[in-house]
Amino acid sequence: MTTTKPTPQNISAAYVVIGDEILSGRTKDKNIGYLATFLTELGIDLQEVRVVPDEQDRIVAAVNALRPAYTYVFTSGGIGPTHDDITADSIAKAFGVGIDLDPRAYKLLEDHYTAAEFTPARQRMARIPFGAELIENRVSIAPGFRMENTFVMAGVPAIMQAMLDAIAPELQTGIKMQSASVLFDLPESKIAGELALIQENHPQTAIGSYPKAKDGRFSTEVVVRSRDIDVLASASAAVEALKQAAYQKYKD
Amino acid sequence: MTTTKPTPQNISAAYVVIGDEILSGRTKDKNIGYLATFLTELGIDLQEVRVVPDEQDRIVAAVNALRPAYTYVFTSGGIGPTHDDITADSIAKAFGVGIDLDPRAYKLLEDHYTAAEFTPARQRMARIPFGAELIENRVSIAPGFRMENTFVMAGVPAIMQAMLDAIAPELQTGIKMQSASVLFDLPESKIAGELALIQENHPQTAIGSYPKAKDGRFSTEVVVRSRDIDVLASASAAVEALKQAAYQKYKD
Repeated sequence: MTTTKPTPQNISAAYVVIGDEILSGRTKDKNIGYLATFLTELGIDLQEVRVVPDEQDRIVAAVNALRPAYTYVFTSGGIGPTHDDITADSIAKAFGVGIDLDPRAYKLLEDHYTAAEFTPARQRMARIPFGAELIENRVSIAPGFRMENTFVMAGVPAIMQAMLDAIAPELQTGIKMQSASVLFDLPESKIAGELALIQENHPQTAIGSYPKAKDGRFSTEVVVRSRDIDVLASASAAVEALKQAAYQKYKD
Repeated sequence: MTTTKPTPQNISAAYVVIGDEILSGRTKDKNIGYLATFLTELGIDLQEVRVVPDEQDRIVAAVNALRPAYTYVFTSGGIGPTHDDITADSIAKAFGVGIDLDPRAYKLLEDHYTAAEFTPARQRMARIPFGAELIENRVSIAPGFRMENTFVMAGVPAIMQAMLDAIAPELQTGIKMQSASVLFDLPESKIAGELALIQENHPQTAIGSYPKAKDGRFSTEVVVRSRDIDVLASASAAVEALKQAAYQKYKD
């Protein structure tokens, strides 16, 4: 793989999923795949994902390991009103800043709820680390926030997706990685040698080979990726030629 | 959260998903949720997941960060026959051992394939780090392997699942975390204060609150977890009582 290191035109990202419920298997994650596709479409390379439990020291450690290493860090989960929602306090600790009720967030929530509805638990959702910018939440009002390069979002998929739409305009985008895929009705071992040669001859591409098993038959999806459309076309043509040659060789 | 630190009766695990295709969003991961549930059922606490790209230094760094910190490390992906399958070599490097064609793995593959089928690419799947034990693959023969506390498996879900079944008998299991769940037809902010008190009064439990949004209505699933069935029953009863009281209070 040759094109995945951060460079000036290569905007990178990491994602921290915060939640015991994912690690216990009780909730099946839907956000990783969504964020991955969302960032890829913006030309931002998601380079690492970590899933960590609802524990402050674990959240702090993950965020502080990742935020110097990537252009952006995204987190989701743990910004609701209950006792196990400890993300905002953990982010404040990670950045070494204080945290308190934020007047902007407080007003958003106060305007949205009746006085009776605006319980202490809901007021808690206005706790935002000092110095953060708010992220709009069109679904349920309680905002996310941005601290430097780190975007802190809700874990409920519909809310996370709305927050991503809200922050998309402020993200620096890269040259989009283009991809082409060729499906082989053959197990990958039958084309592996030739494919390695194609990769060698096209160093500006990343060529992935993904085996699939269905009904006892193996097939292979070969995906060529490059930021240069001409390079992509040339490598894809080589993979197509390999397909024709392999079908000729293995036809039965 | 109070019960998630490793203790003698608390067997812990981390999981490294290896694959550019997950990070690009092209493939939606199905293995994290499967492994999480599999381990929870064995009483093993999955404490962390990392998704890393097909790059040797990134795989080595993740495995070496995690293997001293947890009872077990599981990896999936990158053990096929193609040029982008670099997991076995990466694991050898992480453990500081050599790697070569393994006579046991070679024989398994040689017996399975005809001479014509047993291509150099397929022979490459017999590369196993020195000192590793093989993990049986009932689906497609090419084995995974275990190095000390680290289990290296295929990324194709059907194959990973078969490998997990193969290694289950050799895993040390913990006292299974029991759980009970109570569904509230209320947003979590309406019960957050009382729920925090229940958590405080039941320190041997982990009480999670999971908001759900559907058709513009918010509901909340409260999940109580404990390794002690009596403690679980007592905390669950308190949550049930809270539900009755809250419904009384907010009925409309």
